[in-house]
Amino acid sequence: MPAKVSDSTIRRLSHYLRILEAMARDGGGTVSSVQLAAAAGTTAAQVRKDLSLFGSFGKRGHGYQVAELADRVREILGLGRDWRVALVGAGRIGSALFEYADFRRRGFHIVAVLDVDPAKIGERWGTLAVEDVASLEAALEREGVEVLIVTVPATEAQAIVDRAVASGVRGILNFAPTQLRTEDGVFVHDVNMVMELEALSFDLTNRIPADVGDTAD
Amino acid sequence: MPAKVSDSTIRRLSHYLRILEAMARDGGGTVSSVQLAAAAGTTAAQVRKDLSLFGSFGKRGHGYQVAELADRVREILGLGRDWRVALVGAGRIGSALFEYADFRRRGFHIVAVLDVDPAKIGERWGTLAVEDVASLEAALEREGVEVLIVTVPATEAQAIVDRAVASGVRGILNFAPTQLRTEDGVFVHDVNMVMELEALSFDLTNRIPADVGDTAD
Repeated sequence: MPAKVSDSTIRRLSHYLRILEAMARDGGGTVSSVQLAAAAGTTAAQVRKDLSLFGSFGKRGHGYQVAELADRVREILGLGRDWRVALVGAGRIGSALFEYADFRRRGFHIVAVLDVDPAKIGERWGTLAVEDVASLEAALEREGVEVLIVTVPATEAQAIVDRAVASGVRGILNFAPTQLRTEDGVFVHDVNMVMELEALSFDLTNRIPADVGDTAD
Repeated sequence: MPAKVSDSTIRRLSHYLRILEAMARDGGGTVSSVQLAAAAGTTAAQVRKDLSLFGSFGKRGHGYQVAELADRVREILGLGRDWRVALVGAGRIGSALFEYADFRRRGFHIVAVLDVDPAKIGERWGTLAVEDVASLEAALEREGVEVLIVTVPATEAQAIVDRAVASGVRGILNFAPTQLRTEDGVFVHDVNMVMELEALSFDLTNRIPADVGDTAD
């Protein structure tokens, strides 16, 4: 593992993996860095550079074996194993994520669901029962949870995360529209749906090219 | 509007806005760049720099008026108006977004829902009926849609987006785990839930600090 891998490299690896898996379903064989780059919307040099960070792949002039490269990228991303996940916030977004096949396909298994709402506590979600968030620590320990998905309101998120981190959770996928603070060695990734819509609103308001809209200075 | 505003500036503006709105609910008054920076997890210099891109705010040494600055940031982000949105993909994620109060609160109004599944077409979603995606163009025109939210499978997304762009849509919020290609002047923002989980998996596998896990070279 190289000392320094940028977040954009990781994102591209995710993207290559999706492309390689589609190619594997279509029969596999070999793929050149030029082909992989074309499918990923990047350059062949970028593909080679990203992959070379993690060792030597393929033979010069012969491209990569699709199945082998997919395996290797899965391994780099830490996807060669299952992750035990707790979901805090049994609302609509939480429910959609609970059923989200792409998460399970990637080895992320939701093993506990918790909420603060008495009307939700006890609800059956698949084979699970929604638990009271008051017993968060007990659930995390009982299930050996490694990753927390947070879909609670912004005002509640920090306190939940502080408790989970104190219980040893080191990975957070945060859907609450707030900036979480955690100690070093805890990894937070944000899914900012509202922020993306706001950025889109900014683009549409300010960035319409001169040839399609009025110019503004 | 300055010539060049980075995406991270836009993200910080979104973030400032959320903080300012919370402050306004708590009584408003004035806020210094130091206080805003502390709440946003950035520096006062960064706050001043971000805001100065859009003109002059507040009085040196007197801070900003909370309500006034919130209004101004809303205006910069293009949130001083309503956006007409079509949702393509009436699955679980789509349903969660349809009900997502934070979208409506920001002025994003879903005025059409479309799907390819005959079992879903005709379903009542609030005051809307789910429409056949075959009539996408007609729905976009009828409703004056400006923004498309895409929650269809990755393999279907590009074709949907091509049709919407041909019909004049210039803003896409993409939940499909695929890289969309569009012409200049069309703005795509991706919400990559699976990619964020994969990046988290990478972090947990490779980036555990030396003092809490085994070192790896």
